[in-house]
Amino acid sequence: MNLKRYLPILQWAPKYGRSQAASDLVAAVIVTVMLIPQSLAYALLAGLPAQIGLYASILPLVIYAIFGTSRTLSVGPVAVASLMTAAALAPLAEAGSPEYVAGAVLLAIMSGLMLTMMGILRLGFLANFLSHPVISGFITASGIVIAASQLKHIFGVQASGQNLLTIGQSLILSIGDTNISTLAIGTGALVFLMFARKYLKPLLIRSGVGARSADIITRTAPILAVLITTLVAWQLRLDTQGVRLVGVVPSGLPELTLPSMDWGLWQQLAVSALLISVVGFVESVSVGQTLAAKRRQRIDPDQELIGLGTANLGAGLSGGMPVTGGFSRSVVNFDAGAETPAAGAYTAVGIALATLFLTPAIAYLPQATLAATIIVAVATLIDLPALGRTWRYSRTDFGAMLVTIFLTLAHSVEAGIIAGVALSIGLFLYRTSRPHSAVVGRVPGTEHFRNVLRYDVLLCPKVTFLRVDESLYFANARFLEETVMDLVISQPELKDLVLVCPAVNLVDASALESLEAINERLKDAGVCLHLSEVKGPVMDRLKNTELLSHLSGQVFLSTFEAWQTLTGSLVSLKKIA
Amino acid sequence: MNLKRYLPILQWAPKYGRSQAASDLVAAVIVTVMLIPQSLAYALLAGLPAQIGLYASILPLVIYAIFGTSRTLSVGPVAVASLMTAAALAPLAEAGSPEYVAGAVLLAIMSGLMLTMMGILRLGFLANFLSHPVISGFITASGIVIAASQLKHIFGVQASGQNLLTIGQSLILSIGDTNISTLAIGTGALVFLMFARKYLKPLLIRSGVGARSADIITRTAPILAVLITTLVAWQLRLDTQGVRLVGVVPSGLPELTLPSMDWGLWQQLAVSALLISVVGFVESVSVGQTLAAKRRQRIDPDQELIGLGTANLGAGLSGGMPVTGGFSRSVVNFDAGAETPAAGAYTAVGIALATLFLTPAIAYLPQATLAATIIVAVATLIDLPALGRTWRYSRTDFGAMLVTIFLTLAHSVEAGIIAGVALSIGLFLYRTSRPHSAVVGRVPGTEHFRNVLRYDVLLCPKVTFLRVDESLYFANARFLEETVMDLVISQPELKDLVLVCPAVNLVDASALESLEAINERLKDAGVCLHLSEVKGPVMDRLKNTELLSHLSGQVFLSTFEAWQTLTGSLVSLKKIA
Repeated sequence: MNLKRYLPILQWAPKYGRSQAASDLVAAVIVTVMLIPQSLAYALLAGLPAQIGLYASILPLVIYAIFGTSRTLSVGPVAVASLMTAAALAPLAEAGSPEYVAGAVLLAIMSGLMLTMMGILRLGFLANFLSHPVISGFITASGIVIAASQLKHIFGVQASGQNLLTIGQSLILSIGDTNISTLAIGTGALVFLMFARKYLKPLLIRSGVGARSADIITRTAPILAVLITTLVAWQLRLDTQGVRLVGVVPSGLPELTLPSMDWGLWQQLAVSALLISVVGFVESVSVGQTLAAKRRQRIDPDQELIGLGTANLGAGLSGGMPVTGGFSRSVVNFDAGAETPAAGAYTAVGIALATLFLTPAIAYLPQATLAATIIVAVATLIDLPALGRTWRYSRTDFGAMLVTIFLTLAHSVEAGIIAGVALSIGLFLYRTSRPHSAVVGRVPGTEHFRNVLRYDVLLCPKVTFLRVDESLYFANARFLEETVMDLVISQPELKDLVLVCPAVNLVDASALESLEAINERLKDAGVCLHLSEVKGPVMDRLKNTELLSHLSGQVFLSTFEAWQTLTGSLVSLKKIA
Repeated sequence: MNLKRYLPILQWAPKYGRSQAASDLVAAVIVTVMLIPQSLAYALLAGLPAQIGLYASILPLVIYAIFGTSRTLSVGPVAVASLMTAAALAPLAEAGSPEYVAGAVLLAIMSGLMLTMMGILRLGFLANFLSHPVISGFITASGIVIAASQLKHIFGVQASGQNLLTIGQSLILSIGDTNISTLAIGTGALVFLMFARKYLKPLLIRSGVGARSADIITRTAPILAVLITTLVAWQLRLDTQGVRLVGVVPSGLPELTLPSMDWGLWQQLAVSALLISVVGFVESVSVGQTLAAKRRQRIDPDQELIGLGTANLGAGLSGGMPVTGGFSRSVVNFDAGAETPAAGAYTAVGIALATLFLTPAIAYLPQATLAATIIVAVATLIDLPALGRTWRYSRTDFGAMLVTIFLTLAHSVEAGIIAGVALSIGLFLYRTSRPHSAVVGRVPGTEHFRNVLRYDVLLCPKVTFLRVDESLYFANARFLEETVMDLVISQPELKDLVLVCPAVNLVDASALESLEAINERLKDAGVCLHLSEVKGPVMDRLKNTELLSHLSGQVFLSTFEAWQTLTGSLVSLKKIA
């Protein structure tokens, strides 16, 4: 049972049949065709040699098929993680250098270790603290930065930068060096891909192709662009005209790569690896859950951490870059009929064959074509209407989103996501540190008690009833102390204070000490502290504490009982304004 | 009005009368007598020249009298902050060197800036996240480390270290060099102070002295120890016998000191300054609130940040060390009858006079005497029974406390407090990310719905009612998605799911997206999503969202209405086991 939990392959492999194999194979062929240009392009985006993208699309897929719980998630290099890889490594080494490649491998290994550890410790809940507006703003801003960073390949100029400002500045300074042949290839590929995305599918459907097949054919447009521009570049010897090509890629499968043991480098990359891990995990899980739900399947987020973690370990050990579950590829995999993670393993075989036999052809692939596929791919990540939706729904959430977008665009991806998370948690802590509480009075003629600000109720100047609508724990313990003391100071006649606790599900050790302090301070001020409607489990815990043995007042089962015992003839009706 | 908030002195100074002045003066004299040895001792503990402690007890007290809201808090050097100062500076410079002193001054300035900014931004609530068990464990462990660190002065040996392990090792290696005269002075002072603390008060009371006066006289024992041992050291020329004395202290008031402008140093000390600030603030506020409550006064935590912040700025600018509100001195100040913060200003005058005229005498004060006063003072900080209390009350809180104590003892004060806070917040986030929810059924013959696990209720296999007992926000949005999908997968017959929302006070943007995702996924799985008992304000916000326009089911005012509409003849009674 437990083995099945940690090795989800045991859940499906024993029942694996011929019809499933057929479905998986068809999906694998389609995903392979889609993944070849993507893995090359994302390696380029990360500043890495093209083959690193291919290496990251072999072993990780096989490992995920063993440890992952999503039936259809397509693991491999993705755009945002590639941008984050580039941002992490840019300060450390020159793009493409052996040190840079070693850094990418180390990022994959560290990210793998972190995700696996989080999975074993069941820390998947930590990802909850990447709120939707923060992640959505982050991905939109990353998409913009990625698209901007690829323009240099379209124009065939040298440019650099990790944010919109530095990239823009660098582009403007170098735009005079534009290479016309490169621009022709780049814009040609871009127009073709945009056309395919927008018009090919309706065209195919009108020609009688089924909607799903039309969609899948459309998704293979990038490989067509790659084939055509490679042929053109080879025929016209475009490299002699200054068009930058991918160049000679070593043929053959990746070899076992051991990570750098430079402890200083580990420390430098730790934060980046953590961010790549968490962002990748959040994206994978949300794609995985969406697809699983369509077939009434489920994924286990904690096991998903282990699946992605081991996949990244595999990526690093086979010389690849960080991987995660990609949105568009997973959807294609699902739509193409993949039924089990075996489809991923078949895809790995496809990529391995490509690495063995197609690499000579890749040498003539123009970088501008890959840049065009990246730009068209990330265009779908940019969701500006989400800004308006969030603004209309919640100003706080919009604030966190805007800060994330602004810092990602103007500073760096890491600053953007860290600020967004810190702001979300900060706002959350702030909100929970001020629980709702209300002074209540008796509704005349009943045994009910209601907020004095909303109802006409009976009050007694010597007794105050304070209802707390929240569990009491360290985050709001001090708030309670202040609320109570303010009440006591504002009512010099006060003799008894009743804490009405029907909504208190928990009193932690901090809140217990606060209650003890409140009890002592009220005693000093000549006021008795009483409790009413304390829930059973809370009372069980309080029973053996000093609070109850030193309590200056009593514990009442009902608030009405407290009212009858404590108030005398001084009761008067207070009407709300 | 606003001016009075930011300058609390305006609240009491205009009404300041002769009788208040008399009370404040008496208290000031007693606190001065107590503060002289303390400020020298805590400077020694922080590794600073003795006069730095005096400097930190003049200007800060005057400034706090203007900006502070506590009537009786006694600001100045305290034990824990001094230990933290030593821990922060030890890696940077040799104790007592000019760089080391400059570091202490910078810590005071930075701590002052941080506290003041937090006060202006009203961030006092951040201190809530130092939970009671963590702060209690931290102070106990700090007390132990402080006492251990002073043993070298008692034995007259050279030793160093920032935690119990390194201090202990260093002591054992050097114990052979014990100086007998120093040991005699040290143990003499220690025995005298412990005797005074334990027996002097009852003795005085039995001799007819009032309890409060007896207490105050007892508190002045340290100055007696200082006087006697200084005289002995001077008469017997103990310095020629290897007894380490405080040595020549520059006479005269502190001069204006400008902080170092070395940006690298600012960055190195930032975390330490923040920790010193927050720990000091938490201690000050809890002492201040306890004392204020006794007279039905109140303190304003956000203004308290400004009071402590400006006091620290004053400490730094006058060449002093970080200051905060001390527990024992504040209690003495209160018991001696201080009525307004003017008592603090008078104390400042007392310390200024001591700095001007008593410094020549201090030269012969043995360091062992100061070490003895520190050990006796911190003994009151060590609260081991709190461990047992916390263990009995809550295992989670005990865990956070134990980690804090262990790391403070075995690693460093900073590691201890950071781990404690991180663990508290982590446990808190974990708890809130799993809100209570329950599948409910209809209580037969009523319109009420109750938890199926606790009551015999009517159920319908095609309709599930899920009650969520918490506001929905990003921390638990994903948990809701998982809970709902698990329900759907476990009940293949399910056609309708009703979310029962009477306890949902808030749906933030993340939770809204989760609800939209749940709606879409349920649609894919052939299940309709309904809502019931949505609160008015929540409904107002949801009204204009896509959730309601795309909702596959309906919104019901009451759960009973949903029951009547959705369930048919398939209802059956489920008895609890």
